[in-house]
Amino acid sequence: MGINDFVSSEDDRLDKLLKFTAEIDKMTGVLRRTVLIDKSRRENDAEHSWHIAVMAIMFEEYFTGKADIGRAVQMCVVHDLVEIYAGDTFAFDKKGNEDKEQREAAAADKLFSQLPKEQGDFIRGLWEEFDAMETDDARYAACMDRIQPLLHNTLTDGHTWVLGGATREDIEKREEPVRLYMPKVYEWIERNIENGIKNGWISPS
Amino acid sequence: MGINDFVSSEDDRLDKLLKFTAEIDKMTGVLRRTVLIDKSRRENDAEHSWHIAVMAIMFEEYFTGKADIGRAVQMCVVHDLVEIYAGDTFAFDKKGNEDKEQREAAAADKLFSQLPKEQGDFIRGLWEEFDAMETDDARYAACMDRIQPLLHNTLTDGHTWVLGGATREDIEKREEPVRLYMPKVYEWIERNIENGIKNGWISPS
Repeated sequence: MGINDFVSSEDDRLDKLLKFTAEIDKMTGVLRRTVLIDKSRRENDAEHSWHIAVMAIMFEEYFTGKADIGRAVQMCVVHDLVEIYAGDTFAFDKKGNEDKEQREAAAADKLFSQLPKEQGDFIRGLWEEFDAMETDDARYAACMDRIQPLLHNTLTDGHTWVLGGATREDIEKREEPVRLYMPKVYEWIERNIENGIKNGWISPS
Repeated sequence: MGINDFVSSEDDRLDKLLKFTAEIDKMTGVLRRTVLIDKSRRENDAEHSWHIAVMAIMFEEYFTGKADIGRAVQMCVVHDLVEIYAGDTFAFDKKGNEDKEQREAAAADKLFSQLPKEQGDFIRGLWEEFDAMETDDARYAACMDRIQPLLHNTLTDGHTWVLGGATREDIEKREEPVRLYMPKVYEWIERNIENGIKNGWISPS
């Protein structure tokens, strides 16, 4: 069972695409610290990536830059692929974030080399652009990646904030792209930080 | 807990977008008949939608039409949203497929009316275009939606084929978009149908 049952197409490029498709099904098993809004279980990377991709279709009017939504959505669905090998790094884990870059670069080499060169280079390029956050498309996608887990926290008793002992400053730092590029949404985030402090989910300092 | 904890942004459009984002988290609980490739559990609609969106970034060279990949990826991530209220209809359930159209239209009314008009119309348009399968973007996205569950079946002992008592004809009908628009991939599908018959996962007639 599993990939050993793969029937070759006798076309090397197509086989690579199909096997890569099977390989990335592992995203369903990369668990985040965030829980689903019904609190039934932890969210996985496939679900998170899908969720922010749908958001990217909807939130454009609050973005101060000019994003190509089709590109931003593509970035959203691939932005966490390297976590198949590097694992999810908890946003409020300072130690885990120290070596995140090296771990993810090694994972990217392992992952994208499984694809035909063109597809591998293209998806790696999207991922690197997302991480560098220097283009409007990447900044917009990054905002989605910050708003979604915060929304989950606001509706699940501050789940990962409590788990990570997050302070106001930690969250402000994490949500900085939203402050810079989607200021109207950031006003809503500030209300939620105040509410989280009031409820004891967030440490005031 | 849950949506009752929502803190308003005092901006009606933004509130709608954020609440809709929370509402569609329910896609993580819409279970398909397909199982994950590691067979650990049933796949959900969020995972499936994400999976075919990544595929859409990769398989363009096998498509005989001319797709706008950015649009096709957007279609992929929204194509099953109505199932939040209509439920997933098993591909090999003939009875369930009889009233699928009416159930999904009612679900679409309920779902998309929760959004600001522009976003609601846009996403509904993408979903309707996907379903009608009359444009290249929709045909390409539909192919992804057919290849992914078939790939899962080939690697999980024909899981939904066995479950639904699928015949060769059922599968050929289901995979018709791939035969029409991605003929090289369809050759690989034919090999897998033969293999599935040989393994007793598919009824030869």
